[in-house]
Amino acid sequence: MKNTFGNSIAVTVFGESHGDCIGAVIDGLPAGIAVDNGFIASRLSLRRPAGSISTSRAEKDEFKLVSGVVNGVTCGTPVTVIIPNENVRSGDYDYGRARPGHADYTAYLRYAGHEDYRGGGHFSGRVTAALVAAGAIATAALEKKGVHIATHIARCAGVADRGFEDFEKDRQKLENEYFAVLDDSAGALMKEKIEQARAAGDSVGGVLETVVCGMPAGVGEPWFDSVEGMLSHAMFSIPAVKGIEFGDGFKLADMRGSEANDPLRVKDGAVYTEKNSNGGINGGITNGMPIVMKIAVKPTPTIFTPQRTVDFIKNENAEISAKGRHDPCIVHRARVVADSVCALTLCDILATRFGADFLR
Amino acid sequence: MKNTFGNSIAVTVFGESHGDCIGAVIDGLPAGIAVDNGFIASRLSLRRPAGSISTSRAEKDEFKLVSGVVNGVTCGTPVTVIIPNENVRSGDYDYGRARPGHADYTAYLRYAGHEDYRGGGHFSGRVTAALVAAGAIATAALEKKGVHIATHIARCAGVADRGFEDFEKDRQKLENEYFAVLDDSAGALMKEKIEQARAAGDSVGGVLETVVCGMPAGVGEPWFDSVEGMLSHAMFSIPAVKGIEFGDGFKLADMRGSEANDPLRVKDGAVYTEKNSNGGINGGITNGMPIVMKIAVKPTPTIFTPQRTVDFIKNENAEISAKGRHDPCIVHRARVVADSVCALTLCDILATRFGADFLR
Amino acid sequence: MKNTFGNSIAVTVFGESHGDCIGAVIDGLPAGIAVDNGFIASRLSLRRPAGSISTSRAEKDEFKLVSGVVNGVTCGTPVTVIIPNENVRSGDYDYGRARPGHADYTAYLRYAGHEDYRGGGHFSGRVTAALVAAGAIATAALEKKGVHIATHIARCAGVADRGFEDFEKDRQKLENEYFAVLDDSAGALMKEKIEQARAAGDSVGGVLETVVCGMPAGVGEPWFDSVEGMLSHAMFSIPAVKGIEFGDGFKLADMRGSEANDPLRVKDGAVYTEKNSNGGINGGITNGMPIVMKIAVKPTPTIFTPQRTVDFIKNENAEISAKGRHDPCIVHRARVVADSVCALTLCDILATRFGADFLR
Amino acid sequence: MKNTFGNSIAVTVFGESHGDCIGAVIDGLPAGIAVDNGFIASRLSLRRPAGSISTSRAEKDEFKLVSGVVNGVTCGTPVTVIIPNENVRSGDYDYGRARPGHADYTAYLRYAGHEDYRGGGHFSGRVTAALVAAGAIATAALEKKGVHIATHIARCAGVADRGFEDFEKDRQKLENEYFAVLDDSAGALMKEKIEQARAAGDSVGGVLETVVCGMPAGVGEPWFDSVEGMLSHAMFSIPAVKGIEFGDGFKLADMRGSEANDPLRVKDGAVYTEKNSNGGINGGITNGMPIVMKIAVKPTPTIFTPQRTVDFIKNENAEISAKGRHDPCIVHRARVVADSVCALTLCDILATRFGADFLR
Repeated sequence: MKNTFGNSIAVTVFGESHGDCIGAVIDGLPAGIAVDNGFIASRLSLRRPAGSISTSRAEKDEFKLVSGVVNGVTCGTPVTVIIPNENVRSGDYDYGRARPGHADYTAYLRYAGHEDYRGGGHFSGRVTAALVAAGAIATAALEKKGVHIATHIARCAGVADRGFEDFEKDRQKLENEYFAVLDDSAGALMKEKIEQARAAGDSVGGVLETVVCGMPAGVGEPWFDSVEGMLSHAMFSIPAVKGIEFGDGFKLADMRGSEANDPLRVKDGAVYTEKNSNGGINGGITNGMPIVMKIAVKPTPTIFTPQRTVDFIKNENAEISAKGRHDPCIVHRARVVADSVCALTLCDILATRFGADFLR
Repeated sequence: MKNTFGNSIAVTVFGESHGDCIGAVIDGLPAGIAVDNGFIASRLSLRRPAGSISTSRAEKDEFKLVSGVVNGVTCGTPVTVIIPNENVRSGDYDYGRARPGHADYTAYLRYAGHEDYRGGGHFSGRVTAALVAAGAIATAALEKKGVHIATHIARCAGVADRGFEDFEKDRQKLENEYFAVLDDSAGALMKEKIEQARAAGDSVGGVLETVVCGMPAGVGEPWFDSVEGMLSHAMFSIPAVKGIEFGDGFKLADMRGSEANDPLRVKDGAVYTEKNSNGGINGGITNGMPIVMKIAVKPTPTIFTPQRTVDFIKNENAEISAKGRHDPCIVHRARVVADSVCALTLCDILATRFGADFLR
Repeated sequence: MKNTFGNSIAVTVFGESHGDCIGAVIDGLPAGIAVDNGFIASRLSLRRPAGSISTSRAEKDEFKLVSGVVNGVTCGTPVTVIIPNENVRSGDYDYGRARPGHADYTAYLRYAGHEDYRGGGHFSGRVTAALVAAGAIATAALEKKGVHIATHIARCAGVADRGFEDFEKDRQKLENEYFAVLDDSAGALMKEKIEQARAAGDSVGGVLETVVCGMPAGVGEPWFDSVEGMLSHAMFSIPAVKGIEFGDGFKLADMRGSEANDPLRVKDGAVYTEKNSNGGINGGITNGMPIVMKIAVKPTPTIFTPQRTVDFIKNENAEISAKGRHDPCIVHRARVVADSVCALTLCDILATRFGADFLR
Repeated sequence: MKNTFGNSIAVTVFGESHGDCIGAVIDGLPAGIAVDNGFIASRLSLRRPAGSISTSRAEKDEFKLVSGVVNGVTCGTPVTVIIPNENVRSGDYDYGRARPGHADYTAYLRYAGHEDYRGGGHFSGRVTAALVAAGAIATAALEKKGVHIATHIARCAGVADRGFEDFEKDRQKLENEYFAVLDDSAGALMKEKIEQARAAGDSVGGVLETVVCGMPAGVGEPWFDSVEGMLSHAMFSIPAVKGIEFGDGFKLADMRGSEANDPLRVKDGAVYTEKNSNGGINGGITNGMPIVMKIAVKPTPTIFTPQRTVDFIKNENAEISAKGRHDPCIVHRARVVADSVCALTLCDILATRFGADFLR
């Protein structure tokens, strides 16, 4: 349903970049989940622009939980988080001249000229702040059940990070890292490349890899509400995501079955697979191994370099160069959004399987 | 909802590989859509195993439309298609010994030992025949509205097909092709590789590319029900799909914005983009350019080569070699399934936007 | 969604009165529920026309469970029941001449003349046979969890039955009764009145009262998915139902709060209410007392008496007298449909609250 | 989904009586609908307590549209309305002592003691203010399409109002009436009875009748998403509603078919029915006649008279007398809530049928 996602635990997002506020409603969370405002704030800080590799729009993200939480604990009724917009400079936007790669033109078509175009309106990455706040509650609930999520910048501006080795150690390294890489020298090189793109009035993209450990086996559904189906549906809501793959993903296409299949073994009574090319999911259902997925994040479409475009009001060719404040890269900021969207979806999948109280 | 997908036009699948029948219910189709049994049959024939590159299980796919259609026209009420199962040899399956890469073990966990394991049960690719029959009705409705879908085997067993050049011509070439490639010599090489894998008791995978022309611009939703979100959700229901990308997909991750953005132009009053790296979708909404997506299909997990596995009933290590009849490759058979799932999803998206009668 | 209802356990109905078959898909039932074909058959027999107070259309209701059940136990995947139509005499229907009180004219408007009008098509009470078969599985699952449902004809043709006194005893009396009254002399009088209406070429209506004992307390949702909201939504799908009330229902409107409120008491550590004017539901959530509801069933619209109507094809005034075989009363046959729809809805509510495995 | 309702246009409510604010998100409204803050304010004033027949809790209802509306016009993205809570006196509530007839005890069971019990929390009628604000936007959109809704107090404290005679004239009389009756002398008597109840520390209930003129014929769905099913589902979300009937409702149960059926006629090419016992709906689909429904509103459960209850924390018998500020009657205030819920549901039904842009 448009701006709502989830069967048992559903999140609804609302708000425009330059409107009053953005926010989210999470419905279906059980009563009794601890909500730590400090943790939400720290998650929001990972998404917030910072330094020269981000936009200079300063957002304090002074979120407010306006319903569903009393004394730091969920009541069981809808949890609503609201984040006021501040530091808005709508003058930087020039209606009619579509930014290539952005939703300006499609929003105009979809909403017949009534869309709030200021700062990308409802299509702005700004709205993901609400997903991060909502996701922080989901993340904390999952962690109490032993389900841990970690996302790193697997690739940025053409530079690759190393993969996960020791999940628990790597996860802790990533946790409060603003630029979440496992190999700091790769991270330094990525930032260098981002700076170069920024200097050139251009932008870069990347790949985020998310790994989930501790999900119970036997969770998910066949056919449409497979774990892959649900996660991909949710992940594509993150602006700029253009691809997703699970386990070895597109590499599996070139393998033979004998190579792609993950041999099963029993050890101390527990079943595991010797490797994890299937990313922890078979037939849409978790098998107890880590869930592994990668998402492709395209380069930020708003760039300072002049581009050919149209003025869709005048219906004529035009040129555009971004004014104002824009990110030369959003991959690092999207990291915590991926974590959050993943957490919300997994909470929903678990609640569908075991009832929402499972998460308490 | 598990085995149902779609907001305005929803499809529900049911059935097990070795049960009485498999089938689908499509709810929400408008009254007055022509239903051509010959077309449904021809679409089913593209999915049916044939020749040495497929399983030798012979299915006649004698489908029956048991509700919602009178005199070759939809009534507006749920359309139900039923396809009886025949030629079933359940003895070939050995309960407890999980096929690596398949859903045997996860189904056991999910359904606590009550799953119908014969032939993969509800997880069998057999169920996709129902999606193809349902999809044929959706495909025909879309074609009458000028929306055309074509899928080719972009890659199989490591061999690449050429890309689309002249969509309309290429689409016609693919239409009734059992092994749907644009470059026949690439196709011949793919089949050779499939034969080699079969001879080795092994299997291969591939990549399917789907292109949609004629979709109205301005269709889709922001955030969760984006065109990408909906299509990916549906596509991951096809067994063996482990990745999806739109437009240039994962390649976008390594581009700069100036390269990834599609410049807009006006010609004869119509807006188009000079290239289509974004696959016809911006901000989750169609921009009028072709929708382009690729899905990764892993190699068939059931192979004749001995594999390490577990017997999950005895909870001990075991070995497994497939008995019976299995596909060394399902990529070519999955082609029409991808077309069908895409058609059903686009019908739903159009009905959500314009009302279902738009499709009449 | 049109022909689908339920959040966690959803039922989809399909089929037309004079088509191939009617049927239902139930998705979300847990694996491991015993399915007794004899019980389904006995439930269907309570809905089947019998004697002079029903239509003479003879239906054998030879249902078939074509998916989701193996060896009498659910697999966890969609359960599909199909009931072939037989004994069809489509010639009795005269297209264009709308039966007053029936859906002939609205179906024509809704489906633009493509509706299957034979025997009422998809709007026929015939489709409720599928709900009864599906409901029988739900009913059996609930009974194993101590949840018992009983419906009696509280009123028919102006004659009132007595109310429930000893629920367990009364329920057993009703269980296999074709004409389900608690007071047999009232029942005899009702039948007499039905015969009189039939003789006059007319029909009668009535009220069904459904009581549910054993539902866990604390189940349901605030606001939209209240127990009342869900049950009423489902109950209005039964053709001819035009009203529903819970507890003392419309009588509450004339009471004072001191009279309408149900005083709470504790006995042996258990909370109960001294009376049950609220029908076991407060704030949309069960309180542990019996759920009590009444539905109003209007008289069968198809009657032999001549009526003023229109021919909507010719767009002119016309007269109509039913030909063929019709029920002078459907209240007694609707009884088991009410039981069934109630059972399906309560299974859904319980699965939403506790996870579907609760029902195993 | 719990606190969300609607297929194409969905409303989500959130908030607690004594929390920060209450509010609603409406998703799916087309772009381009005029939003008049003055009209929203006037609708809210009809729900606000006033005079001696209401609670003395003073709420200013200073609503704010924080998303989805720019310059008084919808953008097409989610519209969020927020209404701050003020004048909160939480000390009046005594946790553990359940008010009979209220949700105190069931909320405790449902949310395991984590519910926000202050002022009834999420179960408070206070939340209906958000439905009224959201409903005002829906109402205005419908009026522009010629669909008019009017609700009057058909019955209160045992006193009956007259029925609708001239709909348009009656509707205008009711429109801005705080105590919406058609017969002022009946209204005066009702208020007298309310005062008497208040003086006795007691409360009264009533019946609201809602009539909708101008709905297009041929709208709605068969089976589950019938107009009756959708409206009843939504209407039962209004606290204190315990019954609903369409057309002649429960009275139909005692009629014969010849009396209950509405004869159809053609006049000037237009089809109508000579009377409207079916309330404008046949087979779940509108027939073009006015939609007529009645809802039973039980007396306010919170009364000053001492009542037997339990302390569910101590698990022992107790006595309770309301402290603080409470309504001796909410029927008149529920009127605009009924209008609003009806308007939201009809917008959803129309958008499902014709696409949301129909409402523009």
